[in-house]
Amino acid sequence: MRVSVIGGSTIGPETAAVAEALGERLAERGHAVVCGGLGGVMAAVCRGARAADGETIGILPTDDRRDANPHVTTPIATGLGHARNALVVMNGDAAVAVDGAGGTLSEIGLALAQGRPVAGIDTHEVDGVEAVDSPTAAVTYVERAAGAD
Amino acid sequence: MRVSVIGGSTIGPETAAVAEALGERLAERGHAVVCGGLGGVMAAVCRGARAADGETIGILPTDDRRDANPHVTTPIATGLGHARNALVVMNGDAAVAVDGAGGTLSEIGLALAQGRPVAGIDTHEVDGVEAVDSPTAAVTYVERAAGAD
Amino acid sequence: MRVSVIGGSTIGPETAAVAEALGERLAERGHAVVCGGLGGVMAAVCRGARAADGETIGILPTDDRRDANPHVTTPIATGLGHARNALVVMNGDAAVAVDGAGGTLSEIGLALAQGRPVAGIDTHEVDGVEAVDSPTAAVTYVERAAGAD
Amino acid sequence: MRVSVIGGSTIGPETAAVAEALGERLAERGHAVVCGGLGGVMAAVCRGARAADGETIGILPTDDRRDANPHVTTPIATGLGHARNALVVMNGDAAVAVDGAGGTLSEIGLALAQGRPVAGIDTHEVDGVEAVDSPTAAVTYVERAAGAD
Repeated sequence: MRVSVIGGSTIGPETAAVAEALGERLAERGHAVVCGGLGGVMAAVCRGARAADGETIGILPTDDRRDANPHVTTPIATGLGHARNALVVMNGDAAVAVDGAGGTLSEIGLALAQGRPVAGIDTHEVDGVEAVDSPTAAVTYVERAAGAD
Repeated sequence: MRVSVIGGSTIGPETAAVAEALGERLAERGHAVVCGGLGGVMAAVCRGARAADGETIGILPTDDRRDANPHVTTPIATGLGHARNALVVMNGDAAVAVDGAGGTLSEIGLALAQGRPVAGIDTHEVDGVEAVDSPTAAVTYVERAAGAD
Repeated sequence: MRVSVIGGSTIGPETAAVAEALGERLAERGHAVVCGGLGGVMAAVCRGARAADGETIGILPTDDRRDANPHVTTPIATGLGHARNALVVMNGDAAVAVDGAGGTLSEIGLALAQGRPVAGIDTHEVDGVEAVDSPTAAVTYVERAAGAD
Repeated sequence: MRVSVIGGSTIGPETAAVAEALGERLAERGHAVVCGGLGGVMAAVCRGARAADGETIGILPTDDRRDANPHVTTPIATGLGHARNALVVMNGDAAVAVDGAGGTLSEIGLALAQGRPVAGIDTHEVDGVEAVDSPTAAVTYVERAAGAD
């Protein structure tokens, strides 16, 4: 299946390590990663997924697909700015949030509004988001919740 | 100024009364209301604003402006679905959230990401949202925070 | 009714005079103008409509409603870039094209795809666009075609 | 490079054969196809590209990626309706139009507005569109014009 990974664009090394492990785990399990295509959690999860030969789709806010981080295999330019957040979660069967601020919160809300299961690692505490403590637990949760176990 | 009012599309009579009072208060203070143009909090806040001759802009998810509730003075069709949430908060100088589920959460996140002050009445408890207990307090907060006191 | 007016953003004085006369004529007939909110034909048609106290809605490509020309009464920010062209024609019951290049051509196509009647003054010659030679003739055509005669 | 292929959603067998040959030619030359993901020219060009093992990206107007035709390798849901046309041409380095009505005309306009070279086969006659008479000529033109010769 496809899993949307959402999170902060400015992160420290610990969060980057979590996002990278998440990407690797998703790819090992055969899932494609969908993200916003830029830096921070988006770049780290793609780097991890590529280490396991996974597919990485980056849905960018800008109108130039060359703005994608180098670990994105399929960059999609939108030119939509913040409105592209809806597309990031719409293109996954489930979502995992890692860290993040307002943009990530909006994607959590959009995922819930569109009926996507959401796991969260060190992110906003919101009703409907399953708080987990590791990438492996996040992948296990979204596989079960999205029926791809 | 313009204030985006966001909230649930299916609400009870108490929430409707709060939203209606909020709309009336905003209009009395000379502010235009921006909302999603449909029912629930969106219709109630517009009804209240119209009672005080306020302007009400409804930014719809559908492509037909006739889908707006009857209290919208300026309906804007978008055909964007969930992506229109970004436009609802972008077109206000501040936001007030009343009740609401995932869609409202996404609009709170988008408002914060775009630097808009946000007051909340019986809504999601999120860092950055000023929890208030009345329409009057909400209007006072957004006026001060947006510099329109 | 509402009429979308589309056209070039860089124009000479003759085209500006045509657009201004068109805006004035539309407002005199009680129609609101919808446009892209920026300069050229967009500013001229709004200036004309305001001279006759008309309503002017400007649907902007940027995320800042202050980018609207000073003759727009209701600016709507979208942050959508080129994708906002769909909203410009969606929010009118008919369209009039004046001059214009690729962006205008896209709006003509979107208007036709959405079933809107289109009159054209010195613009692209396209099947489905009624070529007229004056603002008055354009208004007469769109009133009849949209059933608002 | 990536080439956006735009055209009618309801076509006859001759147009389908042209679109299919175009897809095959693009894939043989190593180019990915970007299209609107639905039927008609969109399905035919993807079928042709897949026959030569090409990549096919379908950018859909709906919010469900399962709406893509079966020859799309990377479906992208947008939920944007007509506004998604901007994304179809934005994600290619050049465009080829085959047949088509208003939607195709809007994509031609958007491509020109975004500086993309456009070749046309039996489509709208518009300044800036290079009219060609075969899929091979279309591919030769866009390769040269986009500097990917």
